Amino acid sequence: MSYEVISDLLAMGGRYLRIRHTSSTLRCDMVFGVFLPPQASDDHPVPVLYWLSGLTCTDENFMQKAGAMRMAAKLGLALVVPDTSPRGEDVADALDGAYDLGLGAGFYLNATEAPWQMHYQMFDYITEELPELVKAELPVTDSWSISGHSMGGHGAMMIALRYPQRFKSVSAFSPIVNPMACPWGRKAFSHYLGDDESTWQRYDSCYLMAQITDPSGYPPLLIDQGDADNFLLQQLLTENLDAPLDSAGYSAEVRMQPGYDHSYFFIASFIDDHLHFHAEHLGLLD
Amino acid sequence: MSYEVISDLLAMGGRYLRIRHTSSTLRCDMVFGVFLPPQASDDHPVPVLYWLSGLTCTDENFMQKAGAMRMAAKLGLALVVPDTSPRGEDVADALDGAYDLGLGAGFYLNATEAPWQMHYQMFDYITEELPELVKAELPVTDSWSISGHSMGGHGAMMIALRYPQRFKSVSAFSPIVNPMACPWGRKAFSHYLGDDESTWQRYDSCYLMAQITDPSGYPPLLIDQGDADNFLLQQLLTENLDAPLDSAGYSAEVRMQPGYDHSYFFIASFIDDHLHFHAEHLGLLD
Repeated sequence: MSYEVISDLLAMGGRYLRIRHTSSTLRCDMVFGVFLPPQASDDHPVPVLYWLSGLTCTDENFMQKAGAMRMAAKLGLALVVPDTSPRGEDVADALDGAYDLGLGAGFYLNATEAPWQMHYQMFDYITEELPELVKAELPVTDSWSISGHSMGGHGAMMIALRYPQRFKSVSAFSPIVNPMACPWGRKAFSHYLGDDESTWQRYDSCYLMAQITDPSGYPPLLIDQGDADNFLLQQLLTENLDAPLDSAGYSAEVRMQPGYDHSYFFIASFIDDHLHFHAEHLGLLD
Repeated sequence: MSYEVISDLLAMGGRYLRIRHTSSTLRCDMVFGVFLPPQASDDHPVPVLYWLSGLTCTDENFMQKAGAMRMAAKLGLALVVPDTSPRGEDVADALDGAYDLGLGAGFYLNATEAPWQMHYQMFDYITEELPELVKAELPVTDSWSISGHSMGGHGAMMIALRYPQRFKSVSAFSPIVNPMACPWGRKAFSHYLGDDESTWQRYDSCYLMAQITDPSGYPPLLIDQGDADNFLLQQLLTENLDAPLDSAGYSAEVRMQPGYDHSYFFIASFIDDHLHFHAEHLGLLD
């Protein structure tokens, strides 16, 4: 598979790479970020934590602002951070420049409606094309976990519930747990997927959770949510997950963090906990 | 003194404040950042690390990208991060939009030449007005240290050498150690200070270091410099400090870090070492 390393920096004794490749799924060039801890080599492949970012982000925000590399280097964990939408001049964008539709707002789904369906196939990109490239070209094992923030928390949970066998653990900061029930999700889903809400369900974590009758085989879940997050009551709807979690008997810890907001400072405050949680389930603490 | 808290976020169990005030020294409104660790209160004031940022930065870059808050919270150390120049529509800027003169490039000096002298009085702002505001309004002690990056490394060292009794320790990442001898420094000093190079000396760390005959009473110095830093040989001139350090008998550790560049990823990789260094000299590890 062809790709180009567009930057390669030393950080925390490991390497921070930005990689550009032509995505056949998205029909555009994409850039993603990789942190390889100092332990990683062809002779010593390491587990991966996939990170999905939120609205308006690119591959760079998490790497610059979350302070995750320090602990990832200590634990021996690779980080893979994709972009949040297809990119390029011929990629459809919101006509009014809205931040919650189009570029930077792919919602990790496969669009079926024009003009979005041509490029907005983020679900397939994140679950098929990108992992194949990462596994083929980087010194990583098959042990993967997944996490994300806000729209990316939705993505991480939704993808883990769709492909539970692929991930050893899943976590989220401030996730959109029930996109079918909030303005961000309803706007995006109606544009990308059309008016038939039955086609939305496969991308809604609350819906997917409610379908689970046997939670064995599903990855353990950790959620951190700030109770001073301006988006909590209108968009994130954390409480909507309580009943489906209970009915599924799912192994989950949902932590309400007093006083914290929606920012990267919140992520940075608890990222070490999440990295430890994933490291434990990836066998790095054995 | 009047000021306005424009944001107040919880981070690492402490508080990240951005504070706006009208600077009489700079004749404009200024914003600076403060991190107060969880230990800080009116009954328990804490020591301060002053951080001076590099070219193009504002008060925000270090707080967002350096990953310093985690260790500062653990150590009980406040961070104070000023902007890098005066700001505002009536503040002179480089006519060609250059990044290394004017806005974002104040070089921590008092300009004497038009049009700069009206607002570019960063030395007085950093050494007089801002510390007075911080001491009067925030729960901090008189124990201060100072650090910075690149242009801010120049600022930190130069200010510590001018006011050695004020600081318990000084450190720098990738500092411009000899601005009189590099293109960045010569350009800025000629515009801000005029052609008489004798007026430049008070702002040049190599010059100031060379004047020291008795190093007792000067704060210990730690420098980290990446050897893959693109600016090392033309602008930073780290080696120029060797002879003055030797002749002064100054207590300094200059660490060349193999493979590291000039970025915030370099700062983030070693910021914990610097915070520990300052904490030790501030008595926080006793």
